Amino acid sequence: MIEVPALDEAAMAAARERQHLLAKPVGSLGRLEDLSVWLAGVQGRCPPQPPVSPVLVIVAGDHGVAAQGISAYPAAATAAMVGNVYAGGSAASVLAPRAGARLRIVDAAVEADTPAEVGQWKVRRGSGRIDHEDALHPGEAQRALDVGRLVADQEIDAGADLLLIGDIGVGNSTACAVIVGLLTGAEPIAVVGRGSGVDDAAWMRKTAAVRDAMHRGRPYTSQALDLLQAVGGADLAVITGLLVQAAVRRTPVLLDGLAPCSCALLAAQLAPDAVRWWLAATRSPEPAQRLALQGLQLTPLLDLQLRLGEGSGALLALPLLGAAAATLAEMATAQEAGLSR
Amino acid sequence: MIEVPALDEAAMAAARERQHLLAKPVGSLGRLEDLSVWLAGVQGRCPPQPPVSPVLVIVAGDHGVAAQGISAYPAAATAAMVGNVYAGGSAASVLAPRAGARLRIVDAAVEADTPAEVGQWKVRRGSGRIDHEDALHPGEAQRALDVGRLVADQEIDAGADLLLIGDIGVGNSTACAVIVGLLTGAEPIAVVGRGSGVDDAAWMRKTAAVRDAMHRGRPYTSQALDLLQAVGGADLAVITGLLVQAAVRRTPVLLDGLAPCSCALLAAQLAPDAVRWWLAATRSPEPAQRLALQGLQLTPLLDLQLRLGEGSGALLALPLLGAAAATLAEMATAQEAGLSR
Repeated sequence: MIEVPALDEAAMAAARERQHLLAKPVGSLGRLEDLSVWLAGVQGRCPPQPPVSPVLVIVAGDHGVAAQGISAYPAAATAAMVGNVYAGGSAASVLAPRAGARLRIVDAAVEADTPAEVGQWKVRRGSGRIDHEDALHPGEAQRALDVGRLVADQEIDAGADLLLIGDIGVGNSTACAVIVGLLTGAEPIAVVGRGSGVDDAAWMRKTAAVRDAMHRGRPYTSQALDLLQAVGGADLAVITGLLVQAAVRRTPVLLDGLAPCSCALLAAQLAPDAVRWWLAATRSPEPAQRLALQGLQLTPLLDLQLRLGEGSGALLALPLLGAAAATLAEMATAQEAGLSR
Repeated sequence: MIEVPALDEAAMAAARERQHLLAKPVGSLGRLEDLSVWLAGVQGRCPPQPPVSPVLVIVAGDHGVAAQGISAYPAAATAAMVGNVYAGGSAASVLAPRAGARLRIVDAAVEADTPAEVGQWKVRRGSGRIDHEDALHPGEAQRALDVGRLVADQEIDAGADLLLIGDIGVGNSTACAVIVGLLTGAEPIAVVGRGSGVDDAAWMRKTAAVRDAMHRGRPYTSQALDLLQAVGGADLAVITGLLVQAAVRRTPVLLDGLAPCSCALLAAQLAPDAVRWWLAATRSPEPAQRLALQGLQLTPLLDLQLRLGEGSGALLALPLLGAAAATLAEMATAQEAGLSR
């Protein structure tokens, strides 16, 4: 079990008290008030400041199960999507500068070659077909987890004060459905969604693959690394490592959709107190994401029917954190405003 | 009935088509895609651009019914809140520059004096106790409506390409509950919320006042101006005028919480096609706002339990409009990204 620092309870209490004194009805800023308290806790100061150096890390990987025809895209699409992020044409590329976030892509297991700086931590090319073979060879899950921890260290050492976690990978929603099904005790049919937008026939193939993979993974539900080896993937192990290490390094995280939330279940197994450092940005229409959030006891900030991944939901939620910190820090108190209740 | 221009259907069709071509699964940007189509329709071009000159107009007014002890604040709090916006200490003051919006306060009916530029369009001081007398004298509802239309014209002539509508006013949630109850056919008990955060005893007084005012207003449910005179207020009439005139002038509107949404019901009676120019920013915990949104067939973008008013929810939703326009305009197409489905 990995030890994780506690949030700063004194800063959180001070934030709660200051919220109470501000020139507004008590509680009237709703979830923004909770956010400001959380930011005080993770930053260890009251008032907290808006994130000044947020970094979106997008982790990419291919999944052998994609060959089963369970996605609206062919497996080769992953490399094209990564290339499009790199070239600036993706949703994340457009949204990151608007939200004031830097963007980094990490190729964990893309089948094809990717630009050198993207692919420098590549663990392997693709992953096994999890419905009938392991996703990873022995040792690869640990190696990928370590890559995630190392990337987190790099970004935090370079000044990141908030990590946003996104994903790209044809077939990754199948692996995530398997993991969520196993870790929350749900049936295959309850965890399989439309992913990239598959039709009924593909949905049935996907559900069959999830059922078979869940059968293969069931012996490992209490061992995150073994589970990642059996039915996960190198990209999911990298995300899990990022999540653990961010918490170890006292760095808050904004989780995007299904993949980051599925990995958060695994990371919470490795480091149970890490969940307090994570925030859910967005509700996905994927049923497994809802179950993962329930398991984590996290309520997302946005519900806009986003199912793109790439960290798009996290980028859209990011301004809310700045707003929460700024209102707590900059609003007048009721007394200063001459406002009596 | 006031005529309102139609949205540009050709631009909307072009936006839908372009969304379909972008480098992402079809529909995966969820409500952002709908937003981009709406922006194309109101701007009359595809792709639309992010709002460049949004203006938040906060309309303030006192309500005689506040003397009934139906608010957590005394009536004098309205002037203090207006002063706090003016001085930069309010939530709206903090959030507006962060969202890139200009802020204007209009004193429609504050009991006390306000700074000259805020109070230049004051219609009257406070308003009648709507549970047993008219809110406004004959002619004042029309005058206030005209003030709203004039303020909209001023801001649009000065370059505003999006209006955000907010409100300040102790007791205004009582008048809004009355209006929503009458226009949606709901019972008093179904429209009365906690407003500024009242206790059970105040909630009962508020419900009794709403019941009595609904009785007084019932003859006027099909005449918006008469209804505003009987049970509304000058501030609500100003907001109604703003909403109508924005649509007349082809300027989109982001509605904040209960008061703007209640006035939208009135404005929709005066100009039934205007509703297509309005967007709901935020879901309020006030039950009457939910009913008003149902009546308008609008689904809010955010649900963060905000109940402050001041346009705070509209300011928080504003970045989503920019994100919607920017993704449609700037993302690569699937073909450009080498992405085949």
